[in-house]
Amino acid sequence: MKEAKQAQQAKLDFIKVSEQDRIKAILEIAKALDANKQELIQANQHDILAAKQDQLSKAMIDRLEMNESRINALIDSVKAIANQEQVVGEITQTMTRPDGLIIQKQRIPLGVIGMIFESRPNVVIDCSCLAIKSGNCIILKGGKEAKHSNLYLAKLVQQAISKYIPKLVVQLIESRQNVSQLLDQVGLVDVIIPRGGEKLIEYVYKNSKIPVIAHFKGLCHIYIDADANLEHAINIVINAKTQRPGVCNAVETLLLHKDLPIEFVDQLFNALIAKETELRVCDNTNTSLKNLKSATEDDWETEYLDNILSVKTISNLDEAIKHIQIFGSHHTEAIISNTKDHLEKFQNQVDASSIMLNASTRFNDGGEYNLGAELGISTTKLHAYGPMGAKEMTTERYVVVGDGHIRGA
Amino acid sequence: MKEAKQAQQAKLDFIKVSEQDRIKAILEIAKALDANKQELIQANQHDILAAKQDQLSKAMIDRLEMNESRINALIDSVKAIANQEQVVGEITQTMTRPDGLIIQKQRIPLGVIGMIFESRPNVVIDCSCLAIKSGNCIILKGGKEAKHSNLYLAKLVQQAISKYIPKLVVQLIESRQNVSQLLDQVGLVDVIIPRGGEKLIEYVYKNSKIPVIAHFKGLCHIYIDADANLEHAINIVINAKTQRPGVCNAVETLLLHKDLPIEFVDQLFNALIAKETELRVCDNTNTSLKNLKSATEDDWETEYLDNILSVKTISNLDEAIKHIQIFGSHHTEAIISNTKDHLEKFQNQVDASSIMLNASTRFNDGGEYNLGAELGISTTKLHAYGPMGAKEMTTERYVVVGDGHIRGA
Repeated sequence: MKEAKQAQQAKLDFIKVSEQDRIKAILEIAKALDANKQELIQANQHDILAAKQDQLSKAMIDRLEMNESRINALIDSVKAIANQEQVVGEITQTMTRPDGLIIQKQRIPLGVIGMIFESRPNVVIDCSCLAIKSGNCIILKGGKEAKHSNLYLAKLVQQAISKYIPKLVVQLIESRQNVSQLLDQVGLVDVIIPRGGEKLIEYVYKNSKIPVIAHFKGLCHIYIDADANLEHAINIVINAKTQRPGVCNAVETLLLHKDLPIEFVDQLFNALIAKETELRVCDNTNTSLKNLKSATEDDWETEYLDNILSVKTISNLDEAIKHIQIFGSHHTEAIISNTKDHLEKFQNQVDASSIMLNASTRFNDGGEYNLGAELGISTTKLHAYGPMGAKEMTTERYVVVGDGHIRGA
Repeated sequence: MKEAKQAQQAKLDFIKVSEQDRIKAILEIAKALDANKQELIQANQHDILAAKQDQLSKAMIDRLEMNESRINALIDSVKAIANQEQVVGEITQTMTRPDGLIIQKQRIPLGVIGMIFESRPNVVIDCSCLAIKSGNCIILKGGKEAKHSNLYLAKLVQQAISKYIPKLVVQLIESRQNVSQLLDQVGLVDVIIPRGGEKLIEYVYKNSKIPVIAHFKGLCHIYIDADANLEHAINIVINAKTQRPGVCNAVETLLLHKDLPIEFVDQLFNALIAKETELRVCDNTNTSLKNLKSATEDDWETEYLDNILSVKTISNLDEAIKHIQIFGSHHTEAIISNTKDHLEKFQNQVDASSIMLNASTRFNDGGEYNLGAELGISTTKLHAYGPMGAKEMTTERYVVVGDGHIRGA
C-alpha cells in the first residue's frame, strides 16, 4: 500500500526532527485553521448538504458540522497539544548498577498509526496533532459522510506542517477498499485505532492482521451507597445521564442501596423525568412513583446510547460490585459514598478504565484529563486503558550506557 | 475451557489480597524449592532420561536439566522477585484540577496471562512468581520434553501459595490440544505470551484470537566506529558473540568503520577464531588474514543462533544506521564509539528494544536489568518493548476523586 510505504519513509525523516520543530508544526496547524475558517466552513457545507439530501439524522448532521465556535475550540485544543510536556525521548527511569552500567528507559514513538473513524471531522485535526506531538506518522481514514471536510483538513495540515516536518507524517486515504488494505500492512503499520460504532469496531477486530486498540461499549454504572450525599448523588446522576445521553461515558444503569430514603428516590426520579429520561426500574425499588416501566434482565446488558436509565435496587456494596463485574464493560464505573472503606473496596474490586469516586462518569475524556484531545478510549488493558493522549502513543525502550562493559555470566 | 474459567474466578479472589500476602506466597515457593530439591531433581531425571532416549541434542538436554546449583539460583531469583518494589496499586500520576477534581493513574494487573513455552522448566517458577507479584493469574503450557519437571513444579507452587492466595492463580495445562483452546479464550484470557522457537511463535501469532506479545528474532548488530576504544571493542564483540552463541541477544553481524586500523581488525578476527567463531566477511574488509569465508547478501538477514559472525565494512555512521534499519530485528543494537554526537545519533535513529552504548548486547535480559526474571522479551512495541518483568504485566487506569463534581460542558 503506497501510503504505508510513504509513512515508513516519512518516519525515518521524522525521527530526526527536534521537539521545537514538532511544536512549531502543530502551531502552524492552529494558524492555518484560523486563517481559513471560511474555506473550511464552505467545504463542510458540502458534507452538510449531502447529509441532508441523504436524510441523515439530526444528531448525525450536528456531529458533522464545523462552525466558527467549533473551529475556535479546535484551535484551542491544537495549541493545548503543542504546549503539552515533551513525550518523545523522555527518560522515564534511570538505574546505575554497582558495576557502573547505566540502565535507562526512554520513551519513543510507536511508529505508524492507522486511524479509522466515523463522522466528526475534528478527528483529523486532533489525531494529526497528537501523532506529531508523539513523533508518530498517522494514516487517517474517515467516513464518507465527512469526505469534503476531511479532505480539506488533511490538505491544510500537510501544507501547514511541511515547513518543519515531512508532510507525509499525516496522510488521508479515501476509498473504502483501502480499509481492508490498511488492515493488512503488517510490518508497515504498527497499530490500528478504530473509533466509531460497534459495527466498525467489530469489522476491524475481525479483519486486522495488525494489533488493534479500541473501545467496545460503555455500559457505565453509578452506585449510590446508603450514606451518600444525596444532593451530590442527584447532581451526578442528572449530569451523567442527561448532559449527552448518546455518548459512551453516559451512565446506563443506576444501582441504589435498599436503605436510601424513599423521598430521595422520588426526588431523583422526578428530576430525571423532568429531563425526559425514560426510567426502567426493578421491582424492589423503594419509590412512591406509579406507572414506572419495569426493568427486565435485558436492561442490565444494554448500552442505550439514549436518554434511558435502568435502575436496580441492591442490598449492599458487595452486590453492587458483583453486578458491575457481570455487566460492566470496563469503561467507567462510579460510586457515591461517604464511607472510606466502601470507596476503597469499590476502587480495588471494580475493573474499569476509569473509577469515579463521588464524581460524574462524564469526566472519562481526554480533554477533561488534560490530554488536550484523545486518539480514542481503550477498554482493553494492553498498552493503554482509558483515554489515549500523546503519551499513550509511545512505548519505552532500554538505553544502556557502558564504558566497555561485558556480561559476567 | 475449564482452566480459563477457574482463572477468572481466582482473579476475583486474588484482587482482594494484600501486597504482604503476595510477598509471603512467593517466599513460600522459595521455601518449598529449598525443602524439595531432591524430589525435584528426581522428577527432572525422568525428563532427562526420556530426552536421552529420544536422542535430543546436548544443548537441549542441558537446557532441561535442574541440578542443585541451578535450583539455588532459581531460589535466589524467587526471593529477588518477592522483594521487588510493589507494582500493584501504585499511583503513577496525580493531578489536581483547578476545580479540585483529583485525577490519578493507578497500576493494576492485566488479569489472566496465557504462557506457552518450551524446554526450560525454571520458566514455571519465574513466571509464577512474576504473575503473583503483579497480581495476575497465569495459565502455563510447557513443552512435553519437560513434562515431569513442569508438573512437579506446578504442584509445588500451588501447594506453597495456597496458604496466602488462591492456588488456582497458577495453573498448568498439559495436552497439546489445549493450546489451540487456550488461544480461543477471548474475554477470559487477556494476553498470550509465547516463548520459544520461531515455529511456536508463528503458530501462536497465526492462531491466537487473543492479543499476543512475543519476541521474534534477535538479529543484533555491533557497529565499531572509527574512534572506538579498541580494547573495549574486542572485549565486547567476544562477549557478545561467544559467551552464549545460541541466544537471542548474541551479536550476529558486526559493522566495521572502514578507517579502523588493519592491525585491530586482524587482532579482533584472531581472537574470534581462537574462540572457534566462523567468520563471514565482506570483500571490502581491511584485513591481512587469508582464506576468510566471504559474506553473501543472505548473511545480512540471517540469525545464526550459532558461533558464526558476519562482518561488513561500511563508510560511516549513516551507512551503519541504514544497514540496521534494513536488517535489524528491533531486538538489541550496539555502538562502540567515543564521539558523543555519534552515540546520540545512533540512539535516536536506531529502533530496537535495547540500545547499547559501549556495552555488550548480552545485557538485554530481565535479570541484568534487575527485573528478577523475565516473562519474555518483546520485540513489538505495543504494551512492552524489551524484557518484561512484573511492571510490564500491569496496566494503568484512571481513578478520579471528586466531591460531587459534575462536568461543565
